[in-house]
Amino acid sequence: MATKKKQIVKKKQIDSTVKVALLGFGTVGSSVARVLAASKFPGLELTHIFNRSVERKRTSDAAKVVPASVVWTEDIDDILNSNVDVVVELMGGLNPVEGWLRKALTAGKSVVTANKQLIAYRGANLAKLAASHNVHLVYGAAVAGGVPVIPGMLQGLGGDQVTRLSGILNGTCNYILNRMEGGADYATVLADAQQLGYAEADPSADVDGFDARAKLCILSRIALHSELDPDAVMTQTISTIEAIDFMYAKELNCTIRQVSRAQRDGSVVHARVAPMLVPLSSPMAWSHGTQNMVVASGRFGGDVVFSGHGAGGEPTAVAVVSDLLAVAQNCGTVQLPVRKRQVAGEFLAPHYLRFVVDDRPGIVSSIAGALATVGANIDSLLQRPGHPKHRLPFVVTTERSLTTTIDKAMKAIAKLDCMLERPLCLQILVPEDKPE
Amino acid sequence: MATKKKQIVKKKQIDSTVKVALLGFGTVGSSVARVLAASKFPGLELTHIFNRSVERKRTSDAAKVVPASVVWTEDIDDILNSNVDVVVELMGGLNPVEGWLRKALTAGKSVVTANKQLIAYRGANLAKLAASHNVHLVYGAAVAGGVPVIPGMLQGLGGDQVTRLSGILNGTCNYILNRMEGGADYATVLADAQQLGYAEADPSADVDGFDARAKLCILSRIALHSELDPDAVMTQTISTIEAIDFMYAKELNCTIRQVSRAQRDGSVVHARVAPMLVPLSSPMAWSHGTQNMVVASGRFGGDVVFSGHGAGGEPTAVAVVSDLLAVAQNCGTVQLPVRKRQVAGEFLAPHYLRFVVDDRPGIVSSIAGALATVGANIDSLLQRPGHPKHRLPFVVTTERSLTTTIDKAMKAIAKLDCMLERPLCLQILVPEDKPE
Repeated sequence: MATKKKQIVKKKQIDSTVKVALLGFGTVGSSVARVLAASKFPGLELTHIFNRSVERKRTSDAAKVVPASVVWTEDIDDILNSNVDVVVELMGGLNPVEGWLRKALTAGKSVVTANKQLIAYRGANLAKLAASHNVHLVYGAAVAGGVPVIPGMLQGLGGDQVTRLSGILNGTCNYILNRMEGGADYATVLADAQQLGYAEADPSADVDGFDARAKLCILSRIALHSELDPDAVMTQTISTIEAIDFMYAKELNCTIRQVSRAQRDGSVVHARVAPMLVPLSSPMAWSHGTQNMVVASGRFGGDVVFSGHGAGGEPTAVAVVSDLLAVAQNCGTVQLPVRKRQVAGEFLAPHYLRFVVDDRPGIVSSIAGALATVGANIDSLLQRPGHPKHRLPFVVTTERSLTTTIDKAMKAIAKLDCMLERPLCLQILVPEDKPE
Repeated sequence: MATKKKQIVKKKQIDSTVKVALLGFGTVGSSVARVLAASKFPGLELTHIFNRSVERKRTSDAAKVVPASVVWTEDIDDILNSNVDVVVELMGGLNPVEGWLRKALTAGKSVVTANKQLIAYRGANLAKLAASHNVHLVYGAAVAGGVPVIPGMLQGLGGDQVTRLSGILNGTCNYILNRMEGGADYATVLADAQQLGYAEADPSADVDGFDARAKLCILSRIALHSELDPDAVMTQTISTIEAIDFMYAKELNCTIRQVSRAQRDGSVVHARVAPMLVPLSSPMAWSHGTQNMVVASGRFGGDVVFSGHGAGGEPTAVAVVSDLLAVAQNCGTVQLPVRKRQVAGEFLAPHYLRFVVDDRPGIVSSIAGALATVGANIDSLLQRPGHPKHRLPFVVTTERSLTTTIDKAMKAIAKLDCMLERPLCLQILVPEDKPE
């Protein structure tokens, strides 16, 4: 008995080289090769690179750091049938990657991946497969790039009961909203972001919140020990935010960020990805440019903040290579029981409501009436000067109410004749928000 | 060969309970017991508690969460000769703890400790001993309490080349300087901190920088892969900071923090713990109250920020219990080669120099002359109104110079007849600081 226990707490020694294959030699893949070449970690050897149209990659400038001994291939079977120990997947998407990685795990190869959609939708399943084949599946690069949120939570917050997560998980949205905070309008900034390579030609995954949602679900699994269905998490686009909203936010000592938040309430997890008003005094307001930030709030440890570069080839490569070292040195990660939990979106929060109206007597009274009908109290009414009466933007903030309650009132208000645009409703993020 | 490699990347399964002994049942020890009782982690069993005058502890309120099966003892041999798997040391100090932990490691017990002085001075040695007995030595709680800086760096930044660390590593100093930022004076705030239990009766370890220095050395080992002699790291007390310094700092868009910084420059590490001027736009200015913060700057990943509650029973217990889970589940930590490196303190930075003089003609010229002699350029001269001529505080800031260069000028300036107090010299922390 005592001997058995001692064995449990013993470490393995590292005494041979771990062979590594890269799937994907794009921005992140070539950065991983560069980081490996620069640091020459003992015990790691890059042996294979897979990419479609591999010749183009093999002869690129980025390939110059790759050792001559590396096998370049466009046939995935060359990897799956090789003696490679770890497959590093940097291609993204569910298909065909999921099938390949299942084969790799089944063949006794560990997997390091930066694929957030795959891990959000199939992570639990793949983890089981990895466990059954006694190999590692790690994905530190899937959330917040070079910011070690996942390893920090797994190895450093396992002892806490984390009840709430808030994060800025999409660098593109953060870049756009930061620029808008400085006065630019959405369309201009989006175009700039596309030109700079921060945003895709179809920016929907970023601006509509699907990218952040996948990351939020991964973090919920790790920190809240809750498996969520990503499709059940409500998202709200940032594309309806206008410059005027930043002006009103500023009057409320706030700015606007795309916030991903989740909090556990018994067997339910309240989760949402949406633009929200964030107090300037909150850590969430600190993140600039394409930075990412995660705040984990624990019962015992209070708020812990992680922040840094959430995207880009080299920061993401840091996460990948760090994972690779952990796998090569056989460092397991702390496993705690994870449960499937229902997703809801009942946040009790003050709300920011922005209307654009053709001004006439009685509008405020109608809005106030609609809010009163659902039992929501108005906290303030803001109207900046200098706007024409026939196209007047103004703002109402409410006291704490459930978002679903406010939504009911907003449906009624949207039908008012005087409304020139669909009214905008944003949560105001306050530290003590709790679901009822 | 292939078989051997596969073995390396395999994980061990956990299939029995790990017995845990606590050494020390003070604030942190009792919090650890509380966290274990609240979360009932599978695979962990608290079996022994050691404390001097143990009866007093066993009958305390804090002991109510402790299972009846736990053996309370004041004889360390009861632990060392037991079948305990992991010893959790929360007593602090080098003696007699070091001897006890050496015995525990030699007996095949893993060690989890929050003891920063022990780990700073003897960590490398103890790690060797642990490795030779094939057991774990982990100390995530030794730096920044509940903020997972150590696990985050070990498991998440191993792939980067971290070249620079800056941290707010002492919550007591941060509390004092935050309160002074609000207008209070040092003596009042120190007395408050003592009453609140944030500061010891003899506050020297905190305010003079020795506590933070030990933590900086631990972080240097992990992130800079550099073993430093803690005694070789220069410290500067915060006790000479006055309210007026915060006013001048504000004019320079800065505040004042006790900053611990280290940066690698080839085979030398430049390190220093001192009050410094920190731009209000820097993450270092964000930390409030007793919060801790660490910024790690990597060649590939850029700046990564960790922040949260750096002290207190429960946040520290989170780090201890997280480590305990990792040890119980046999999760090793990434090992990278660490080298002994020479410590120097040559930071190239702008400097803030505050003088209190009996005003007379020629003072500025004398100061400027002394600075010119060493080749330091003046950047600005600040003099707030409302002070009497016979006791006039004023400030000179310099362009980037080495701190040792400025120190030479300061020695000459301190000898001027008109100086009523020893002049104060603080580095101004700017992002691009680099040793020459």
